[in-house]
Amino acid sequence: MRLLDEIAGIGRDPVTGGYLRYAWTPPELQLREWFRDQARGRSLDIEEDGNGNIFAFWGYGSGTILTGSHFDSVPHGGAFDGPLGIVSALLALDLLRERGFEPRKPIGIAAFAEEEGSRFGLACLGSRLLTGAVDPSVRLVDHDGIALQEVLTPAGKRQDILDRIGCYIELHIEQGRALDKPVGVASAIWPHGRWRLDFTGEPNHAGTTLMSDRRDPMLTFAFTVLAANKEARLHGAHATIGRVAVTPNATNAIPSNVTAWLDARAATTETVEDLVKEVEAKATERAARDGTHVIMTAESISPETAFDTELRDRIAALLGGAPILPTGAGHDAGVLSAHVPTAMLFVRNPTGVSHSPGEHTTDEDCEAGVVALADVLQELAC
Amino acid sequence: MRLLDEIAGIGRDPVTGGYLRYAWTPPELQLREWFRDQARGRSLDIEEDGNGNIFAFWGYGSGTILTGSHFDSVPHGGAFDGPLGIVSALLALDLLRERGFEPRKPIGIAAFAEEEGSRFGLACLGSRLLTGAVDPSVRLVDHDGIALQEVLTPAGKRQDILDRIGCYIELHIEQGRALDKPVGVASAIWPHGRWRLDFTGEPNHAGTTLMSDRRDPMLTFAFTVLAANKEARLHGAHATIGRVAVTPNATNAIPSNVTAWLDARAATTETVEDLVKEVEAKATERAARDGTHVIMTAESISPETAFDTELRDRIAALLGGAPILPTGAGHDAGVLSAHVPTAMLFVRNPTGVSHSPGEHTTDEDCEAGVVALADVLQELAC
Repeated sequence: MRLLDEIAGIGRDPVTGGYLRYAWTPPELQLREWFRDQARGRSLDIEEDGNGNIFAFWGYGSGTILTGSHFDSVPHGGAFDGPLGIVSALLALDLLRERGFEPRKPIGIAAFAEEEGSRFGLACLGSRLLTGAVDPSVRLVDHDGIALQEVLTPAGKRQDILDRIGCYIELHIEQGRALDKPVGVASAIWPHGRWRLDFTGEPNHAGTTLMSDRRDPMLTFAFTVLAANKEARLHGAHATIGRVAVTPNATNAIPSNVTAWLDARAATTETVEDLVKEVEAKATERAARDGTHVIMTAESISPETAFDTELRDRIAALLGGAPILPTGAGHDAGVLSAHVPTAMLFVRNPTGVSHSPGEHTTDEDCEAGVVALADVLQELAC
Repeated sequence: MRLLDEIAGIGRDPVTGGYLRYAWTPPELQLREWFRDQARGRSLDIEEDGNGNIFAFWGYGSGTILTGSHFDSVPHGGAFDGPLGIVSALLALDLLRERGFEPRKPIGIAAFAEEEGSRFGLACLGSRLLTGAVDPSVRLVDHDGIALQEVLTPAGKRQDILDRIGCYIELHIEQGRALDKPVGVASAIWPHGRWRLDFTGEPNHAGTTLMSDRRDPMLTFAFTVLAANKEARLHGAHATIGRVAVTPNATNAIPSNVTAWLDARAATTETVEDLVKEVEAKATERAARDGTHVIMTAESISPETAFDTELRDRIAALLGGAPILPTGAGHDAGVLSAHVPTAMLFVRNPTGVSHSPGEHTTDEDCEAGVVALADVLQELAC
C-alpha cells in the first residue's frame, strides 16, 4: 500500500527488519509529524489533546465518527500493527471524497499514543489518559529511568473531546489466524492481565556449590515457564512468559533472583483467574522443593471488553456478512468502548504472525480493509 | 582483618552489600592504587607487566617465590574472593620481617587482572596474557561494547617475568563447604567449561497466537535448565545456567531468541563431556517438540589442573597435615601451573557461600591463613 510504504523506513531496525517506534522517541515523533502533514494535505483540522493523542477532523461537532489507531510499536514489531489503521483511515477518507460523499456528521482520525506500552509499561496510555481511566499524575518510568512527566505533562481526561465522539471504529490487522476472509468484525477483547513473578534464592558459586546445597531460583522459574504453558493448554487459554530479568546474570553464579512476567488471556475472566491460580500453586510447590521463594503480583488485569453489539451487527451486515470474531489483544478501542459505542474491523493475517518483523498481510486485503472502512464511515456519517 | 577492612568500602553496592569491582573500572583501579601504596610502604619494588597485572617484589632475580591473587569481583561478589589472597600476602610478609627472616630467594606479591572474567568474559585474563595462553590481539568486548584494547594495549607473554618465578602459591577462601580445618591445600582444579546455548523460535503476539501455533524458545530453554540440573545430579557433577538474554524480552511477545550460558564442572573431563552431551541431546529433543532450534557452542573448556604434587605434599606436611582437597573453581594458579610449580592454600568457608554478598570466613581462620602462608614462604625462600 503506497501510503504505508511512505513510512516503511521510519524506525526500522536494519538487522531484524522490525520496528522500534517507541512513544515520544524520534521515529514515533517523525510519524506524528508525517500524520500532521497528511492531515494538512487533506485540509483536516488538527487537534491535540495534551495526552499525546492527535486528531484530524473533517467537520466539527457532536456525533463525530472517529476512526484511527496508533503509530508506536513493540520492540522489533511489524509494519501493520497500528499504522495500518491510521493509513487506512486517511485512504478511506480519500475514497469518500472521490465518491463525492458529503458527511452529515464530522469524521475524525485519531493517532493514539503509547498503545503498546512498550516505553512506559502501561498499554493504551494515550486513550486511558484521554478517557480518565488513568490519572495524569500516574508514576510511570521508562527503561532509562525517565518519568512520563519528563516527556509530557498529561492533560488528563478531556470530557470536551469525548462528548463530541459519537462512535469509534478501529481498523487493525488481525493478530492470529482466526480470519479466513479479507475483513472481519470484532466481537470482544479477551480478558487479560500481567503478573510479575519474583523468584528468590541464594546466590552462590556455580563451580563450588554442591547441587544439594543450592537454592537456585532459575530452577523454580524454569519449572514455572513449563507449568504456565501446560496450564494454558489445559484451560484453552493463552499464557506466555516472554520477559525475564536475572540477578546477577553471570555465567559462573547461581542467581539470587529471577523476575519474570506472565501474560495470561482467555475467553472468560474465570478462566484467566483459574489459570493464574494454578500457575501460582505449581510455582509455590516447586519453590518449596528448590528451597526458594516465589511471590506473584498482579500488575494489570483487564476484564472482557464486549464491543457494542448493535454497531457490530450493523457493520457485519453492511459488509455482506463479515465474520465476527474475538481477539486476545488489547486495543485503544477497548478503552474507548467504556465511553462511546465502539467497533473494530480486522484485516486478514495469513500467517497469524504479530508483534514481530514477520507480521504480514496482502495489498489486496489492505485495500479491502480501506473499502470496508470507507463503507462503514459513509453508513455512519450520512 | 584490619587490612581487609581498609578496602571494605571500595566498590561495595549499598543495597546488596556485594562488590562491583570489575577490571579497569574505578573501584578496581582504586584497589590497584591502594596495592601500590601498600607495596611502597613496605619498600617493595613495583613492576607492572603491561597486561594489567601488578607485582611487588622483595628482592630481585630468579627463583622468586610468588604469591598473590586478584582484586576484581563477580557482580555483587563477596569481600574475600581475591582480595584475601593479596592482603594475606602483605601480612605474611610483615610477619616474616617481624620474625627477622631474611629470604635467600626473592618474594613477590601479584595482583592479577580480570580473574573473574566479569567484564570481558574470559576468566584469568591477566594471567593468561602474561603466560601467552591468550594472544594480546584477542577480541573481547565488555557489556557496553568497549573492546579490551580500548582499555589496555596488552603486552602479551612476558617470558622475562615468567623466567624469574620459581613457584606460585595462591591463598584463597574455600568456595564450598569441603574444608573442616582453618587451612587446607589444593590438589586440583576440576575440569570445567562454559557453553552458550542459542534457542531460536518464532516471535509472535502473546495474546493472539494459539498455543498450538507457537514456536516459543522460552519453553525449550526452561526445559534445558531443568535437564542440566538433573543431569548434573545424575553425573555427580555441577551444572548451572545463571545467565540469560531474551529477545525482545517484552511481556506481551513470544520471544524470537533466548540465549543462555551453561557452566559445567566435574572431577574428570569425561564426566563434563558426558554431561554436556546429555544436556545438548535433551535440549535438541525438546526443540523438535517445541518447533524451535538450539545450537550449543563451547566458549571455553579447561581440562583438569593437577597442582604440583611434590610442592603440595611438602606444604601439607609443613602445615602439620593440612587437608588436601580439589576445587570446582578456576584460579590464576591454574593458569600459572602450566609454567611453574604451583600450589594453593584454602581458608575455611563455614557456610560455603561464594560469589555472593553472603561470602564469609572468620578473623581467626584468616589469621591462620596468614601464618600458614608466612610459614610456606619462609620454607620456600630460605
